[in-house]
Order: sequence, then structure tokens, then C-alpha cells
Amino acid sequence: MLKLFYSTGSCALASHLALEESGVAYEAVRINLANNDQRKPEYLAINPKGRVPALVTERGVLTETPAILAFIAQSFPQAQLAPLADPFLFARVQAFNSYLSSTVHVAHAHKGRGIRWSDDPEAIQSMRDKVPANMAECFGLIERDMLAGPWVMGAAYTICDPYLFTLANWLDGDGVDIARFPKVKEHRALMAARPAVKRVLAAQQAPA
Amino acid sequence: MLKLFYSTGSCALASHLALEESGVAYEAVRINLANNDQRKPEYLAINPKGRVPALVTERGVLTETPAILAFIAQSFPQAQLAPLADPFLFARVQAFNSYLSSTVHVAHAHKGRGIRWSDDPEAIQSMRDKVPANMAECFGLIERDMLAGPWVMGAAYTICDPYLFTLANWLDGDGVDIARFPKVKEHRALMAARPAVKRVLAAQQAPA
Repeated sequence: MLKLFYSTGSCALASHLALEESGVAYEAVRINLANNDQRKPEYLAINPKGRVPALVTERGVLTETPAILAFIAQSFPQAQLAPLADPFLFARVQAFNSYLSSTVHVAHAHKGRGIRWSDDPEAIQSMRDKVPANMAECFGLIERDMLAGPWVMGAAYTICDPYLFTLANWLDGDGVDIARFPKVKEHRALMAARPAVKRVLAAQQAPA
Repeated sequence: MLKLFYSTGSCALASHLALEESGVAYEAVRINLANNDQRKPEYLAINPKGRVPALVTERGVLTETPAILAFIAQSFPQAQLAPLADPFLFARVQAFNSYLSSTVHVAHAHKGRGIRWSDDPEAIQSMRDKVPANMAECFGLIERDMLAGPWVMGAAYTICDPYLFTLANWLDGDGVDIARFPKVKEHRALMAARPAVKRVLAAQQAPA
């Protein structure tokens, strides 16, 4: 059975949601970043990067959210989570998820993970100070150019939607009012109403 | 005809190399980042993100290197640039490219693009100071766990190879001696010997 390693509040929520929407049987295993579980030898043996998510399959371990999301969509085509038969539309899906991964998530990471890029406490604070502006710029672009509505790609729900939902949930904590982005706000409300989303959030929030 | 917008020395080299390997007819259009071409209205009309690469197709514009690379592989399957029929192996390809995009390229970007994440000149300098260590850490992981050899995925050349080559070419400028990573160094030499690579590098280095 597929086994997803996640931590609460992390980007692994996107993969967790996609698994739940796919209908496949899977196990979700919570690790605690506050305990540094991701740096323990038993976890590094699974994912040498020491990050979540990691998806353990019978053929090996997959990492990186855009790759895991595409794997779920391609492995369970009956769930219709991506336009698999059309390389152009599939690339649009991938481009959206790649932007979230390499630009939006990175912008957010400068709030709590500045130590990755500087050892100077004042520099780390100055990165933190710029996070609200950077996240607002990213979501301004998403609102204006990238979110077709009601779902990211238009009429069809795809693997872009759980990923956008995951990162949009970070806006409040990053000091950005989601009300500035009406389409993103409406998307978040639509997502929150999906039964699969309710089930996954309840599972992630249950006591360990 | 496909049209690729690139700038010299940028990550757009990966997409340029994949197009050349695919055998498809395409046009490569150089823009000059030193002139801020990517911020001019005519370019922002093509790619509102103001970045390269951008691939103009008859159906619309694609951005983000991992998405463009997968699009090329899926659109021209006869070139055999990815294990398209196997979702697990395809996800391994995507995970590699996603890591380059969201971690390695980001580590490098803190040398010349620190202004994205802080407005403080001292903070920007402190980010720059950490780039050699971060790039060495990334390439240490690639050397140890991710580069099967001779190509990234093993015996078969894939869309991972031009992307790794592109980022490995940044090591010298980032203050990291590629000789510390023998498999990466050998990979770079194998890549540099490919006729398609020679043609693209010559085209990118020709006078505008």
C-alpha cells in the first residue's frame, strides 16, 4: 500500500489531499518536525533530503510535491485529476505546480527557514520582513493570470487545486489578508467544502 | 513553429538543449537580462512573470523549466527523452527536475538575486556568502543519491540531463570546485561532447 509521510501544516497536505481524491488505499504517517523527526536516521533512510512529503511505493520512494501529484494523477487515471492525454494541458498543470514549488513555497520559506540561506540573525529577520510583500506579489499573479476559476485550470478539478489550497492556507500566518485575492478566497472556500478535504484535515488534526 | 525565449547563462539552456535533442523545428530568441528585456511590456505580454524560459506554442505560452522539459518529452516521443509509459519512472524524472528547480536553482539565486528576499544590502551579502556551502550540499546529495550514471536516470539519456548540465555549469561561478563531485564532473564532460550541446552552446554564444 502507498505510504505518505507528512507533517501537519506542511506542503505535504497537497499530496495527502490528492491521494484522498484518487480513491486509492493509502496510509498517512505523521512525523513531527518540532521533534526533528525528519533528521532521524530512520527517516533519512526513507528520504535523504530530510523533508516531507515522501511517498513510499512498492517500487521505491518518491519526493517533491509536483512529482508526487503527477504520479498520483497518472497512476489512478479514473480519478481524472489531470488532463493526461494532452501534453499541452498537462504542461499547464505542471507549470502551475512548478511555480508554487519553486517560487511561492520558497517565498514563504523565508519566514521560518531563513537559516537555509544565511547564518546572520539580522539577515534572517530582514528576509522574514519581506515575506508578506513577496507572498502578496505571488498571489497577485495567481489571482490575475493563473487561476481560471472555479478551479485552477477552469471547469475541471486537477492536482493544481489541492496544492494551491495548501499554500493559500499559509497566507494568514504570512501576514497577508486573503480577501485581497477574491478568486483565491473563493477557491479556498470551494476546496474546504469538499468531503475529501474535510476528511484529510480531520485526520491531520487528530491527536497523534 | 515553437519559439523559445532564453537568455545566455540562464536555466533556459536546459529547455534549449531538450528542443535541440528532440529533433523538432524551433526558433530560439535571445533576450538580454542586462538590458532588462524581461521587464519590457512586449515580453511581459508573453510571460507575465518576467522570467526565462518561455516557450511559445501554437496553443499558448508555457513557462517553468520542469513543465517545458516534460512537454518536449511528451510531445516528441520518438526522441525518447523520458520514460513516458511508466508513471513511477516518469515521477522519478520529475522529482529530479523539481529538486533542481525548487532547491538547487533557488540556492544559486541567492548569489545574484538576493534582492528578491531582502532589501538590506548586508543581508543580501550574507546570503551570497552562504551560496558556495549550499550549492556544495545540493551537489553532494546529487552525487551520492541522485545521479545513477552515466546519465542521471542510468543508461538512458532523459530530460534530467540537460537540466543537471545547466546547473552544474554554475558551480565554478558559485565558488564550488566540480572536482569534488566526480560523477557530476564526468556527466558534464559527457554532455559537453554531445553534438546537440555543441550546437546550442555555439548558437547561444554567437553575437546577437
